[in-house]
Amino acid sequence: MPRSLVLERKGELSLRDIPLDMDMGPTDVRIRVHTVGICGSDVHYYTHGKIGPFVVNEPMVLGHEASGVVIEVGAQVRHLKEGDRVCMEPGIPDPASRAAKLGIYNVDPAVTFWATPPVHGCLTPQVVHPAAYTYKLPDNVSFAEGAMVEPFAIGMQAALRARIQPGDVGMVLGAGPIGMMTALAALAGGCAKVLVADLAQRKLDIIGAYPGIETINIRDIPAADAIAEATEGWGADVVFECSGAAPAVLGLPQLVRPGGTAVLVGMPVDPVPMDIVGLQAKELRLETVFRYANVYDRAIALIGTGKVDLKPLISLSMPFEDSIAAFERAAEGRETDVKMQIEMPS
Amino acid sequence: MPRSLVLERKGELSLRDIPLDMDMGPTDVRIRVHTVGICGSDVHYYTHGKIGPFVVNEPMVLGHEASGVVIEVGAQVRHLKEGDRVCMEPGIPDPASRAAKLGIYNVDPAVTFWATPPVHGCLTPQVVHPAAYTYKLPDNVSFAEGAMVEPFAIGMQAALRARIQPGDVGMVLGAGPIGMMTALAALAGGCAKVLVADLAQRKLDIIGAYPGIETINIRDIPAADAIAEATEGWGADVVFECSGAAPAVLGLPQLVRPGGTAVLVGMPVDPVPMDIVGLQAKELRLETVFRYANVYDRAIALIGTGKVDLKPLISLSMPFEDSIAAFERAAEGRETDVKMQIEMPS
Amino acid sequence: MPRSLVLERKGELSLRDIPLDMDMGPTDVRIRVHTVGICGSDVHYYTHGKIGPFVVNEPMVLGHEASGVVIEVGAQVRHLKEGDRVCMEPGIPDPASRAAKLGIYNVDPAVTFWATPPVHGCLTPQVVHPAAYTYKLPDNVSFAEGAMVEPFAIGMQAALRARIQPGDVGMVLGAGPIGMMTALAALAGGCAKVLVADLAQRKLDIIGAYPGIETINIRDIPAADAIAEATEGWGADVVFECSGAAPAVLGLPQLVRPGGTAVLVGMPVDPVPMDIVGLQAKELRLETVFRYANVYDRAIALIGTGKVDLKPLISLSMPFEDSIAAFERAAEGRETDVKMQIEMPS
Amino acid sequence: MPRSLVLERKGELSLRDIPLDMDMGPTDVRIRVHTVGICGSDVHYYTHGKIGPFVVNEPMVLGHEASGVVIEVGAQVRHLKEGDRVCMEPGIPDPASRAAKLGIYNVDPAVTFWATPPVHGCLTPQVVHPAAYTYKLPDNVSFAEGAMVEPFAIGMQAALRARIQPGDVGMVLGAGPIGMMTALAALAGGCAKVLVADLAQRKLDIIGAYPGIETINIRDIPAADAIAEATEGWGADVVFECSGAAPAVLGLPQLVRPGGTAVLVGMPVDPVPMDIVGLQAKELRLETVFRYANVYDRAIALIGTGKVDLKPLISLSMPFEDSIAAFERAAEGRETDVKMQIEMPS
Repeated sequence: MPRSLVLERKGELSLRDIPLDMDMGPTDVRIRVHTVGICGSDVHYYTHGKIGPFVVNEPMVLGHEASGVVIEVGAQVRHLKEGDRVCMEPGIPDPASRAAKLGIYNVDPAVTFWATPPVHGCLTPQVVHPAAYTYKLPDNVSFAEGAMVEPFAIGMQAALRARIQPGDVGMVLGAGPIGMMTALAALAGGCAKVLVADLAQRKLDIIGAYPGIETINIRDIPAADAIAEATEGWGADVVFECSGAAPAVLGLPQLVRPGGTAVLVGMPVDPVPMDIVGLQAKELRLETVFRYANVYDRAIALIGTGKVDLKPLISLSMPFEDSIAAFERAAEGRETDVKMQIEMPS
Repeated sequence: MPRSLVLERKGELSLRDIPLDMDMGPTDVRIRVHTVGICGSDVHYYTHGKIGPFVVNEPMVLGHEASGVVIEVGAQVRHLKEGDRVCMEPGIPDPASRAAKLGIYNVDPAVTFWATPPVHGCLTPQVVHPAAYTYKLPDNVSFAEGAMVEPFAIGMQAALRARIQPGDVGMVLGAGPIGMMTALAALAGGCAKVLVADLAQRKLDIIGAYPGIETINIRDIPAADAIAEATEGWGADVVFECSGAAPAVLGLPQLVRPGGTAVLVGMPVDPVPMDIVGLQAKELRLETVFRYANVYDRAIALIGTGKVDLKPLISLSMPFEDSIAAFERAAEGRETDVKMQIEMPS
Repeated sequence: MPRSLVLERKGELSLRDIPLDMDMGPTDVRIRVHTVGICGSDVHYYTHGKIGPFVVNEPMVLGHEASGVVIEVGAQVRHLKEGDRVCMEPGIPDPASRAAKLGIYNVDPAVTFWATPPVHGCLTPQVVHPAAYTYKLPDNVSFAEGAMVEPFAIGMQAALRARIQPGDVGMVLGAGPIGMMTALAALAGGCAKVLVADLAQRKLDIIGAYPGIETINIRDIPAADAIAEATEGWGADVVFECSGAAPAVLGLPQLVRPGGTAVLVGMPVDPVPMDIVGLQAKELRLETVFRYANVYDRAIALIGTGKVDLKPLISLSMPFEDSIAAFERAAEGRETDVKMQIEMPS
Repeated sequence: MPRSLVLERKGELSLRDIPLDMDMGPTDVRIRVHTVGICGSDVHYYTHGKIGPFVVNEPMVLGHEASGVVIEVGAQVRHLKEGDRVCMEPGIPDPASRAAKLGIYNVDPAVTFWATPPVHGCLTPQVVHPAAYTYKLPDNVSFAEGAMVEPFAIGMQAALRARIQPGDVGMVLGAGPIGMMTALAALAGGCAKVLVADLAQRKLDIIGAYPGIETINIRDIPAADAIAEATEGWGADVVFECSGAAPAVLGLPQLVRPGGTAVLVGMPVDPVPMDIVGLQAKELRLETVFRYANVYDRAIALIGTGKVDLKPLISLSMPFEDSIAAFERAAEGRETDVKMQIEMPS
């Protein structure tokens, strides 16, 4: 009997059968799930039972970072066929919505998103998904890498919103998984180099191993001093705030060059003070990021050509049978566990 | 003997002779000043003796919103001649600076700006100015309107940074002089309509008299409700924050449509809390404004073709002899005194 | 019995019943057609039987510029109700297509478009249409104006692609209906003024009656001389090529300012020579236009607020009974017949 | 006695002393020239005596791709000092011009440019140059690489104008030196991969040796077929036309994806036919390139971090004594001579 990883309620996981909607429409595909990454949001639902307004009131299947194999295609599907290795965009918009018509389907209020209550996720043997949000993987991209496309897509969205210009100097505040993804997307996306700042040296060591990435331990040197030194006092062309830490947000005007850009990726729970006059004195532009839209194909292209190598960030892979243990470990938040993945039984 | 309006120190003005640098270079013009508008910053230096890091430590001539007549041209000047009626951009950058080379000369740290300590302003009979920052007025634009170009340029900069798209719904928070200028620039710059929100009904009445401007008294209805009603719940395409008020800044995510833009024009003295998660949920873009660059010709074009009529905003004109009285009145901050101007003796 | 205006074959029109697909889906609305404008493409199908690759091989209902009244709404439709006065976007994309996901649904190769063979148009009593492409008209916008939204949308698309900046000087080559629409969209969309150039004085007189539009009869003065004179030799910020004439295209580099933009709206049947080195010497940007996407709401907003008045361009309205005569007159191409419309029986 | 490489007239070079303006202003630096690359335009002046309107009427020093060492600095220069290793932007604008104020100083009609008649070039022992257009080289960038910055800057300008988005598929038509530079700039600037098309297999072999570059010999397969195959029929996001060949320009609509961009880098001497309707059907954007502005620092950053390696494109270096022979060889146009350089005596 097929079993899913079910978050029964805050703090309680089980592997069990749960009825899921498996109806196929003519524009859908059915996918056997192969690999699922564990995201901080999955862990947060497990440990806190909610994220902001989204509360787990009913048992919910977790997981939204997935790759798999197409096992059935709807009658109108043209770009996929049985046997295709794929990854899936977990958010499904209303294609007739005002936002979707504009191409910004990520901000359609009607989006349903895997493992965001009350929508079930993909830590389950099979899913039915719109073909339009299912993407074929190149032969040289593994299932494990395919399941990395989702978190990398957030970094890609940040890089796109930044409108990086070739040769920009980039800076990333916060070396968590999203900070790392953003640094790699910014580097592949045109930056000459990217400085990553954090307190946690082990995280910096991981991302600092990539050519083109320089690291700053802000225990040793303030970020503002480091960027001033690296740019002769001019500042970074683009700063990606991925820490969500209030002091980092407040200090943004010290980091960006006149006329430059800050991208707010990190999500501080409460409002945080911003130095508006400081931002104005350099006439900075601020961009914000909400998930992603129209980036999966770009992300896959960069991985497929080898320009971005996400494999060093996959720190641990565990079988589905051990997925509760995997979540327990993920909840510990070890510094070197950048991305844990679960492999579904074949 | 030529006299200038000198701010001797905080709270003390005098009309007296003061030595000023009047050397002409080959790319300069000499201008007889005709009309000078009083800006809130002039008044603030008068009443407080400083604005942020800029402190009046020496006697300083006030005034930076000026029109006049060219009375001498440098040898290399081509686009101006004696007798031309002109207005002047009060900030002069280093043309070899990194910012100036990029076209964003307003954020060149080396800019010198009239009536920003220690640089003297233009409430004086004559000024010498770089021809490149001196703009000819069309015949149908009066000196009084010419002296309005400077404050209108701030509204223009806001409208440019917003990247308005034809038919956008705009919203302006704060109906002070800059809010009014911004509303008119946004309307002329492509908005289908602009809603202006404030508490002061008299100000709203002045700007509300323009076709295409709708006003919201936020004593009667919250701004968020008003824009929701006007846009079927979608939100404004662009919101210009011109109040500098903390609650207005905090509430921005409720006003802007998904994927829309907020332009921060108002200058809150201290850091203010911003709802970053709220901004992210709609993936908003924030732009900031610092003075202006490359907008004088655009501003003059809009005034010259009649698309923007600033005359209704000139509330009072006083002769230079009465300029101390004019500043005293300006310091009262009457709601209906949108823009006071001083006419120099001819 | 309901009758439609059917193009039986090249040169032959009839008013007759013809079976049309009238199935309602849950996201559709049924509309009683009120007013339909006659477009040059309708006339071209009538007189030539084809446009480029699109050939009339089967009888086809003409018409794609329509307004009407909603008489039935699908179960999932939220933003429309029975009795709403509306206008309709005639092109329907596949919402799951790559182009539609990007927000550029106009270039989805799978678009079906009214009165483009083999798709029937709207000169028929009722149509069933996706609600997402049906737009409510404000109370103060007449059905006649509602049927003008479609041609105006092309001008809007041109204005959007131009990325007009507030205070730009615009220029339009060709004073046909699309040139006029483009001039009005550019003016409302932020231009300080728009110069319209043509040979036909009567057309220039019509568009020149709008404040903010200046006209150039190129029999009297070359367009390059006129724009040089109007801009002190600098050139127009944006030139909209709406004539489709080869000499106009070739001469574009003489009209645009350094770093400016040309928008190619007119459609020359065959390839035409372009002066690439001339375009490069000023580093110009060229934009092209294909129909429109995401502009109907903007167009309606500009008409509804009175910023754009299209009524003077509606030259003649005829009843549906006389629609064959209307097409015969339209085929004559009288200079003063800017837009002819047909009113359906109620 | 100092000697320069002088083009006496079409077809005649000499190494001789020639009087040059060597006056230092306060914002200038004096540079001992180290390495100078030979550009196709230098060779064209040698073989044809003119390029378009620029005619060699007086003896003129050739060369504009230079690196060197600062040996004297003007009193107001801050960012450079004696001994700095530098490269120089060969075009000097009027900083007060309208174009320069906008940041697009490359299209300032008043630009003076090395080795463009009647302005002398840099194949001479020393030059005096504005410090603002002189750029310090990082320690790990050789003089030979420093002299490559100028031609690479053209590729950078093309990449900037393209507004590449991270993960774009790029295509370059023409594998000459500029095509190669453009391909490398596009790849470093964010493309996932770049396809380069040409007839000359030896050129393709050189550029195809870079990871991320794929080559297409259009003797074997039409470019349209190759890009269709590589993108499942969608097309390239950006196509850089670097061949200047008329058939390549005409065929652009077949190569670019709907809503994509073509950048016109190659310079066809005469007007060439363009398929405007084809461009419109996909609503393509065309950008043109004229030299470069504000890219030297970006180019140097990419070379300095190792993201772009130009060393494999330096095919031959010859001493200044042999520079006439070098030009004779360059005039032969050997396929494998991508970039020849001349080293000045130290």
